[in-house]
Amino acid sequence: MAKNIQSLERAAAMLRLLAGGERRFGLSDISSSLDLAKGTAHGILRTLQAEGFVEQDPASGRYQLGAELLRLGNSYLDVHELRARALVWADDLARSSGESVYLGVLHQHGVLIVHHVFRPDDSRQVLEVGAMQPLHSTALGKVLAAYDPVAHSEALEADRKSFTARTVSEPDAFEETLGLTRARGYASDVEETWEGVASVAAPIHDRRRMPVGSVGITGAVERVCGEDGELRPQLIAAVRACARSVSRDLGAGRF
Amino acid sequence: MAKNIQSLERAAAMLRLLAGGERRFGLSDISSSLDLAKGTAHGILRTLQAEGFVEQDPASGRYQLGAELLRLGNSYLDVHELRARALVWADDLARSSGESVYLGVLHQHGVLIVHHVFRPDDSRQVLEVGAMQPLHSTALGKVLAAYDPVAHSEALEADRKSFTARTVSEPDAFEETLGLTRARGYASDVEETWEGVASVAAPIHDRRRMPVGSVGITGAVERVCGEDGELRPQLIAAVRACARSVSRDLGAGRF
Repeated sequence: MAKNIQSLERAAAMLRLLAGGERRFGLSDISSSLDLAKGTAHGILRTLQAEGFVEQDPASGRYQLGAELLRLGNSYLDVHELRARALVWADDLARSSGESVYLGVLHQHGVLIVHHVFRPDDSRQVLEVGAMQPLHSTALGKVLAAYDPVAHSEALEADRKSFTARTVSEPDAFEETLGLTRARGYASDVEETWEGVASVAAPIHDRRRMPVGSVGITGAVERVCGEDGELRPQLIAAVRACARSVSRDLGAGRF
Repeated sequence: MAKNIQSLERAAAMLRLLAGGERRFGLSDISSSLDLAKGTAHGILRTLQAEGFVEQDPASGRYQLGAELLRLGNSYLDVHELRARALVWADDLARSSGESVYLGVLHQHGVLIVHHVFRPDDSRQVLEVGAMQPLHSTALGKVLAAYDPVAHSEALEADRKSFTARTVSEPDAFEETLGLTRARGYASDVEETWEGVASVAAPIHDRRRMPVGSVGITGAVERVCGEDGELRPQLIAAVRACARSVSRDLGAGRF
């Protein structure tokens, strides 16, 4: 296998650095974080800036991500077959469940949200397309970890952070959760990631019967669970029906 | 001025190629489009793939944009000060006007949409964050061309395509439109870009009184214009009030 191109790998590392944490960095911070000589780092930044991937604040001289990434990210969505097939079904699911709907795919040891339908009410909501969710604690992530072998090993190797007292972090208990997910055909997250929030998700398969993503609803735990504390059966049924419809549109057989 | 890094420039050109037109390309198409040897193109593509910027379809072997661009594009939005300041005002404008609201900035000879609020009704709408609009025919674009000298020269140098019979393409008439925009403090687009669609937009200024973006509403021409064919004055007032509020939040003075 030939070597990858070093300047490209370094440029990608810079963009990842600018995408996390502080998000605005001076040249010294960038070069020391990535263990590069200042001149090397500056040459890469200058090229990234010329291409629109990085912007420099004129006042502080600090660097941040550039607008070209937004334009390219939008083009990525335009060509995304799973998302295109899921648009109508996700709208229907939001309407029938009254909750917000998320569509996720495996990306970099987590779930990347590729589509988000707002809860159909007048509340102010923030679009989360492009955001990441953890694999081990969310319903979308558990579905991927249960059905996709790559996601499974990534979730096992990860440091499964406890977000709440209910997060399942211990390896055996986590494997048990995934087994239950496969046996039932769906996964849930009842206050395991965010206090007060519950989700249900189910797997989407393509024509080769490969797990390519997960779709689910998220809402206040008081609405998603019944008075007995269990997930409302009609919500589970609606989520699973949506996942089956999208899978069929992707060419997966009925049986 | 030192030279920029060639492999990075080539990688950026590949991503631009994959973002336009066909959107799925084989290795031969990419190398011939960019006038590169196949081995060179393959080395860049392999590195871009390893970093998640490009994905390869396992069946056809064709390349397309990768998920990492969506994640980075989302991070770009998170750090976007103009967008953050505009969120609440844009929601208010959508509610008071009953139309969809767009926030745009100058990017690569066009308007990049950095925020989009759906029209507050039950209709199915497609999110256009990350999409581009032309500078010369849209209300958002004319505002940028009228107030931002860089946008102005880009719009003048561009080949101002006629999208409808009403598009203003001829240089003198276009300059006159921009003069009118500056005199009035807002721009309009009545079926100059899309048949049946009209928009109004106004400029946003920052603390240095520089034009940093434009905000506007878009809707059916029958709703945006009155029976006399003129833009409804209350919509113009609402758009200008929104632009002033965002500018004030960015530190622009009242006078």
